Amino acid sequence: MTRPYLPSTAYDSRIDRARDELAETDADALCLFSATSIEWLVGFWHLQTERPVCLTVTDETVHVAAPRLELERAEVVSHIDHVHHYYDYPGGGDGYPHHPSRTPEETIDDMLAELNVETVYADMDGAPGYWGYSGPTLSDLADVDVKTVDWVTEWRKEKSAAEIELVMESGKWGNLAHRYLAEYAEPGKHEFWVAKRASLDASMAMFDTYGDEYQSHLRGGFPASCGFLSGPNTALPHGLTENRRLKEGDVLVTGASSNVGGYRSELERTMFVGEPSDEQEHYFELMLEAQSIAIDESGPGVPCSHVDQAVHDYFDEQGVLKYAQHHTGHNLGMEAHEREFIDRGSDEVMQPGHVYSIEPGIYVPDEAGYRHSDTIVITDEGIEMVTYYPRELEGNIITW
Amino acid sequence: MTRPYLPSTAYDSRIDRARDELAETDADALCLFSATSIEWLVGFWHLQTERPVCLTVTDETVHVAAPRLELERAEVVSHIDHVHHYYDYPGGGDGYPHHPSRTPEETIDDMLAELNVETVYADMDGAPGYWGYSGPTLSDLADVDVKTVDWVTEWRKEKSAAEIELVMESGKWGNLAHRYLAEYAEPGKHEFWVAKRASLDASMAMFDTYGDEYQSHLRGGFPASCGFLSGPNTALPHGLTENRRLKEGDVLVTGASSNVGGYRSELERTMFVGEPSDEQEHYFELMLEAQSIAIDESGPGVPCSHVDQAVHDYFDEQGVLKYAQHHTGHNLGMEAHEREFIDRGSDEVMQPGHVYSIEPGIYVPDEAGYRHSDTIVITDEGIEMVTYYPRELEGNIITW
Repeated sequence: MTRPYLPSTAYDSRIDRARDELAETDADALCLFSATSIEWLVGFWHLQTERPVCLTVTDETVHVAAPRLELERAEVVSHIDHVHHYYDYPGGGDGYPHHPSRTPEETIDDMLAELNVETVYADMDGAPGYWGYSGPTLSDLADVDVKTVDWVTEWRKEKSAAEIELVMESGKWGNLAHRYLAEYAEPGKHEFWVAKRASLDASMAMFDTYGDEYQSHLRGGFPASCGFLSGPNTALPHGLTENRRLKEGDVLVTGASSNVGGYRSELERTMFVGEPSDEQEHYFELMLEAQSIAIDESGPGVPCSHVDQAVHDYFDEQGVLKYAQHHTGHNLGMEAHEREFIDRGSDEVMQPGHVYSIEPGIYVPDEAGYRHSDTIVITDEGIEMVTYYPRELEGNIITW
Repeated sequence: MTRPYLPSTAYDSRIDRARDELAETDADALCLFSATSIEWLVGFWHLQTERPVCLTVTDETVHVAAPRLELERAEVVSHIDHVHHYYDYPGGGDGYPHHPSRTPEETIDDMLAELNVETVYADMDGAPGYWGYSGPTLSDLADVDVKTVDWVTEWRKEKSAAEIELVMESGKWGNLAHRYLAEYAEPGKHEFWVAKRASLDASMAMFDTYGDEYQSHLRGGFPASCGFLSGPNTALPHGLTENRRLKEGDVLVTGASSNVGGYRSELERTMFVGEPSDEQEHYFELMLEAQSIAIDESGPGVPCSHVDQAVHDYFDEQGVLKYAQHHTGHNLGMEAHEREFIDRGSDEVMQPGHVYSIEPGIYVPDEAGYRHSDTIVITDEGIEMVTYYPRELEGNIITW
């Protein structure tokens, strides 16, 4: 079985990379405050709240400063050598037995002092304001020089073979969720009910398949999930409405994904509840051709701007550029959107290991939107498809 | 019926407040980049992505810079006077019919120039790095002086009567989700299945009750939701695991909420699958008493630190302080956690209109955790309970 999480060695090579980069600078340490960056580098995942968590990597060791309620979870992470903990945020006050009286800021300061750190590269200058942190920046709280760098975000763009395996695995379960969606959708059903029943059934299939091997990185979501907009709501790509019962003649714009070891994929389809009208079929075919062009043009060494331009040129030729509202796609992996973007203004060049959504769309005002999204991996030779749900019209007509 | 969203006049008074505060400064405008802050101030809610959205309030007008795919949604917001749009991020490039060729940064710069803005107070110095934005700060992209202020975050602490009505309404639907959870839980059931079925059924009840009046602010979540940890996983407050089947003798630590017009509540219970052991009952009663103390001590004019200290003192007296892992509670409303915190290190004083979770917990290593959370509103006279699910032991024993 494909193991649904990264091997421990993945973190060794990431930490090595951080140390190699640090050695090229005048910095003594790399500090990370973003939960996603920390998870990427050492495999410690936590719920980002008002409580600061600061991971510090030096050439010799990896320490973390964390709240009491993450202590046990941080201590078992094999790539973290030592956990400095505080009680809570804002914290401090007189000492009590069993509780450190240090504030989060003092804990971070003490950790850096213990490690003899004077110059820091950091993903941000102190804890983010997420869920209410309002304390000082790292520069202000510790006697260190701080330079912000986006190393981890940059490194995340190019996935390793092990990461791509998880993205591929994610594509399978997204496909299952989407299949259930197509199965449960019919006139009269509430779109939310259809989406969540399909998500629940696909998620239970994941739990029952992987058993204890499945490690939740979910924070409340579904292991496998899907959702959709229906009818005129599809004309707004980020319409965000999910409170409508389906009708015959509706267009659906769907989305499905799953989370395997913290990695995801993206599958979206334009579907029809019953036979589409001639006009609907026309727009569907234009969208499908634009997506095929984008997939065909993608590959190693190809500028992202070239792929987006090819889609634009096609829409322009066909007289539907006025209905386009967004660029062709984006990198993804741990987050739903990651740098860089398949956009005419992008400087990025596609490289083996990049994972992209390919999702050109057209949106006819007050009528309907048309968008498929498939996930592709750039390889040495070309591309590999992650998602594989039928793309053609006949595979996207819902019957009941 | 309680309308499940804020009246339009709520935004008038918020914008007035921003203008009154601006008048006391040397700034020409307030700029907001956070989706939550923008939603709070003018009622425009959108999915925060790599695409910058910048709301600008001057003494005369409210403008927003936004991507093409938010154009129609922003234009219908009555408290936004004008929408400046760009095509996508990073964007730019040669002009095409129907598409502005300006980048997001140029669009923001043009908006500020058109409004003759030279000095700006902003919630952050430019768009956040969320989902991949990596462009310049506001200071760097526009010829303006920027000072960051957290006005909206501060103002959100004290809720209006209209906001409290929504929080109260949220409490009802959270209660329903929790009731279904208790109904569906039994030995052999998968905890995830129980939680999501309960969430789905409570959510459908919300849709079917409110009908078209229910405005989703969900971005994929449930209108009414619940979840829980079970068995030894409850010993870690942020254990994040949801892949286990229930057994007789399990302790559950649950959570339930709902989203009404963008506002939420928090309900958590310690429950038992079957009769608790004497030891479990002992810890349950200590936790319950600590929560009762915290509720009793809360009220207008009371320092948050006093309430947390009272809980600490009680746990210390009872010899279980070593099992405490976090402070007593936090403000909430639009986010799950908002400033300030019921913490011994807090300077905050409870005021009428503040909404707090009250959730002292104890966590016996490798065995189980014990935590209720109730949401309270501070009133002129004392407090009012938002959540009302039974707190006592007999109401928290699951039978089947």
